[in-house]
Amino acid sequence: MKPTMSDAQLEALLEQVCNWGRWGADDQRGALNFIDDARRAAAAKSVQSGLTVSLSLPLDTVAAADNFEPVVHLMHQTGHDGKRDPFPHCTDFFAISPHGHVNTHLDALCHIFWRGKMYNGFDADEVTSHGANRCAIDLLRGGIIGRGVLLDIPKVRGAQWLENDDGIVPADLEAAEQDHRVRVGQGDILLVRTGRALRRRVKGPWNVREGCAGLEASCLGWLYERRVAVLGGDGHNDLAPSPYKLSMAPIHLGAITMMGVHLIDNADLEELAQACQRAGRYHFLFMMAPLVLQRGTASPVNPIAVF
Amino acid sequence: MKPTMSDAQLEALLEQVCNWGRWGADDQRGALNFIDDARRAAAAKSVQSGLTVSLSLPLDTVAAADNFEPVVHLMHQTGHDGKRDPFPHCTDFFAISPHGHVNTHLDALCHIFWRGKMYNGFDADEVTSHGANRCAIDLLRGGIIGRGVLLDIPKVRGAQWLENDDGIVPADLEAAEQDHRVRVGQGDILLVRTGRALRRRVKGPWNVREGCAGLEASCLGWLYERRVAVLGGDGHNDLAPSPYKLSMAPIHLGAITMMGVHLIDNADLEELAQACQRAGRYHFLFMMAPLVLQRGTASPVNPIAVF
Amino acid sequence: MKPTMSDAQLEALLEQVCNWGRWGADDQRGALNFIDDARRAAAAKSVQSGLTVSLSLPLDTVAAADNFEPVVHLMHQTGHDGKRDPFPHCTDFFAISPHGHVNTHLDALCHIFWRGKMYNGFDADEVTSHGANRCAIDLLRGGIIGRGVLLDIPKVRGAQWLENDDGIVPADLEAAEQDHRVRVGQGDILLVRTGRALRRRVKGPWNVREGCAGLEASCLGWLYERRVAVLGGDGHNDLAPSPYKLSMAPIHLGAITMMGVHLIDNADLEELAQACQRAGRYHFLFMMAPLVLQRGTASPVNPIAVF
Amino acid sequence: MKPTMSDAQLEALLEQVCNWGRWGADDQRGALNFIDDARRAAAAKSVQSGLTVSLSLPLDTVAAADNFEPVVHLMHQTGHDGKRDPFPHCTDFFAISPHGHVNTHLDALCHIFWRGKMYNGFDADEVTSHGANRCAIDLLRGGIIGRGVLLDIPKVRGAQWLENDDGIVPADLEAAEQDHRVRVGQGDILLVRTGRALRRRVKGPWNVREGCAGLEASCLGWLYERRVAVLGGDGHNDLAPSPYKLSMAPIHLGAITMMGVHLIDNADLEELAQACQRAGRYHFLFMMAPLVLQRGTASPVNPIAVF
Repeated sequence: MKPTMSDAQLEALLEQVCNWGRWGADDQRGALNFIDDARRAAAAKSVQSGLTVSLSLPLDTVAAADNFEPVVHLMHQTGHDGKRDPFPHCTDFFAISPHGHVNTHLDALCHIFWRGKMYNGFDADEVTSHGANRCAIDLLRGGIIGRGVLLDIPKVRGAQWLENDDGIVPADLEAAEQDHRVRVGQGDILLVRTGRALRRRVKGPWNVREGCAGLEASCLGWLYERRVAVLGGDGHNDLAPSPYKLSMAPIHLGAITMMGVHLIDNADLEELAQACQRAGRYHFLFMMAPLVLQRGTASPVNPIAVF
Repeated sequence: MKPTMSDAQLEALLEQVCNWGRWGADDQRGALNFIDDARRAAAAKSVQSGLTVSLSLPLDTVAAADNFEPVVHLMHQTGHDGKRDPFPHCTDFFAISPHGHVNTHLDALCHIFWRGKMYNGFDADEVTSHGANRCAIDLLRGGIIGRGVLLDIPKVRGAQWLENDDGIVPADLEAAEQDHRVRVGQGDILLVRTGRALRRRVKGPWNVREGCAGLEASCLGWLYERRVAVLGGDGHNDLAPSPYKLSMAPIHLGAITMMGVHLIDNADLEELAQACQRAGRYHFLFMMAPLVLQRGTASPVNPIAVF
Repeated sequence: MKPTMSDAQLEALLEQVCNWGRWGADDQRGALNFIDDARRAAAAKSVQSGLTVSLSLPLDTVAAADNFEPVVHLMHQTGHDGKRDPFPHCTDFFAISPHGHVNTHLDALCHIFWRGKMYNGFDADEVTSHGANRCAIDLLRGGIIGRGVLLDIPKVRGAQWLENDDGIVPADLEAAEQDHRVRVGQGDILLVRTGRALRRRVKGPWNVREGCAGLEASCLGWLYERRVAVLGGDGHNDLAPSPYKLSMAPIHLGAITMMGVHLIDNADLEELAQACQRAGRYHFLFMMAPLVLQRGTASPVNPIAVF
Repeated sequence: MKPTMSDAQLEALLEQVCNWGRWGADDQRGALNFIDDARRAAAAKSVQSGLTVSLSLPLDTVAAADNFEPVVHLMHQTGHDGKRDPFPHCTDFFAISPHGHVNTHLDALCHIFWRGKMYNGFDADEVTSHGANRCAIDLLRGGIIGRGVLLDIPKVRGAQWLENDDGIVPADLEAAEQDHRVRVGQGDILLVRTGRALRRRVKGPWNVREGCAGLEASCLGWLYERRVAVLGGDGHNDLAPSPYKLSMAPIHLGAITMMGVHLIDNADLEELAQACQRAGRYHFLFMMAPLVLQRGTASPVNPIAVF
């Protein structure tokens, strides 16, 4: 897809959507500040059926074209051995690089830098060999709970999925709002479906660095105006590869670093899309509880929608 | 603490609380069957303030008397290096043995065996080097959402925490119910506080295998009658060491293996206890979303209470 | 390549080369018994120039068609951070699955089973979740030192490397002996070059399970008669895929399990081949010191030839 | 132990023993340049009996007062499961922090910094999140082979082991030379025994940071004059804690960073000491082959002495 603006225009847009200082010089929560107790309570009260849907892919132990750092899952003790133990039991072990390209994960605000700075102007050097002193994932220990909204772009376009070079622009988001009879607003957790998980199941894994549908940089202004609290997608949120020299991932840069919007990458939105269609509504109680990884730059997550 | 019954009586009790076959020969969800959509919806609607509280300890990377397998947390790329990257960012890696003694985790129903069988009579050999073919943690992909109830035993006893040889018996649970004006019922996620997390902070880590407060085996009948869906505690739920030859952990055995009740071990219930006291109620919306670890025997979790 | 015998003949051959009991019912060293102090001393004294050559590939952290479980190498502390430390230093971490298809490693005698038994008839069940109680790699703590011999098969065939379906038969080994003016004898560490490392550098990685040059099963009798102590190769020693139903890797089975011959897989024999040609001799002092991995089934190794 | 000099004198000594530039501005091998092919050949030819002795502790998976980062050893496939596999076999996995306090390992020359520089003046920033661009362990792919010499200090002092605050000074080294009838010279691999491994076996693990016998800083001049190629010990080579403000480990700093002498930490010298005494000679062929860890700062090693 061709860029919708020049690199200079993108740079101006990044400055325009910048929330640095908006919640104080020490703020490390960014757009999560848009969610307050009242919004959380309202989202909970909106539950109707009680049906729950997971938005997480399985943690994948198989190396593939998009899985360079497969999860390691090994047993400390198997059942055969464990049943001979004085305390009959089994246990296991796993190792994970949360940012992997098929791991459903939440990026912390320390994850992306702009000219040596992370969100709110903290220096990138605050992330040392021992982890992030600022904007780490364990600041979200209390969980993210609020109103979730799904925008199902392939549905609106009448396709199973978006192709790898399909960029999503604000008009797509608004067409989906109209179709779904929902309006994204302050404090919402916005999930945008491209159909990547379905495409991978049908067509097999591919190297997403070389091509993956996602939001075009022009969405940044829209996200800013709507005051979304969190953005999630089934790809990397960004259209890849980036058509801009300024950044290989302008949505990551604009959302995380400039706006303080946490990103969920590699969600599985297939079951959610079906549930929304069946329920006839595209908003729901959203809950996500990152692991308390001290100084971590991300956490694997299993986000849940409750209808 | 002295045992409250003989080993033969414990064995009879285990048989008595056995739920094998209750939800069909193929069931792998156990007492989670007590939570249905309606209970989930009711729990969500009961939210008042929207305040959230985490029940998770941090994932602990420091070896200690109760941390034999510390979490490994390492950086793929630091901030100093990452800001020089063409795509300026940082990433990390972690390795975890979820069942570790200071990791807040959810045990899968495959975790404990009784005479070579796991819950519902599946053979222990179903847990091979490649993980659990039955009763694995990824069956809980949809999350556990329902009504949570805290019983704060030290509060009732007028103590900061229970001492290591303090066993909790049904009378303690009922005294707490009375004090807290709450009654544990079908489908509840029951959390029992011993004050272990506070004791550890004040007095330092100790080897919990040698002594840790928890539920005495006589609670099994009570848990069965009340039809709890999940049991959680700030220790290992079990009183340690066990006074019974029959089992080193009769609560683990009775709850997980016989009743199909998933256990949360090593929760942090300090902040929750304060929040309950301040709110004047000891029940709340409880949400927990285990990672989708295929064939896993447990998941680290960050359970969230919403008031 | 077509099989050179029937499955029944292969089974008879396996029985014929069986060394179980040869060095006593408790023996766990197998054909290493062919190397005694005198042979080690003689090999050392044969050193002339003092030139050393490594036979190890680098431990490879990049996932590839033949690297499903890439080595993980991460920093505990980088130089940038380490120079600010009160004790200025850097440190790192690595994780490895030694049997990986591009890891130069030594298989322990517990690695392969024949009808539920490992070498010398020990039960496969001796390898539990906690490692191998018998025939583990740490039994080789004292190192393997002796006379090494290289047979460079592509050189004799006038090729750069063998193609993936090229099997090596005894006549190839003897042609190489004649060409190289060397005779493989009792206690030798035999290294057989196929040129795989060179082929990989030139043509890129491929899935070696689908095709890789190596020894045909008919070599087993020859290896047995020559009383080799250790066998090594630049592939998996076995021709892959196996043309026999009886075993997917008859050389692994025959050498490790029946004969008690430790195998070095995935060596880099390119520099060694050049050094042998330049030196005009194809034997040398060979030394290899497996890590002291208690109950391990293999060790990554860096075998060294000294001329 | 009291310091034998002032911090200013130590600083002058560090400058005095500095080998930066001695082997050219690009040199990354340091004192290994003292070992040439002729020395290697001579060491090999000196072999008499062919007896081999390992100098490695086992890789230790048990957390202890001196083992904060225990080795992780897990099975990919056990024997019970492996014998049911179409290709009957077992495999495993391990993770290691080589610099751990009970891991026998070889420090690379990039490991220690002096005023922001490593050996030969390379900047510490050359060690990034992706490893060491200079002076990494894989430069030693060809192995370290030469004459090894043991100096057994407790033997000379008539003790089983040195106590934790016992520092070794040049007079101790020379007394041992006299007792052992050996003289340390150019290109030697020098091993200095304190008896730490024996003390640990008898008295149990202790936190070596709080006290461990080793070389006092005054040995640096002696090591420099004798032109040792490699230094090894059963502790951390350094006396701990350091009595100098200038450095927490002056032997590490002086040997590695200033002189370019690679260090072997945490060797097991017990069996070697006995073998030397029995053989009546304290020199031998020494062989060590670090793993080919690209950009690594250390490697676990199993050094071998051949008599």
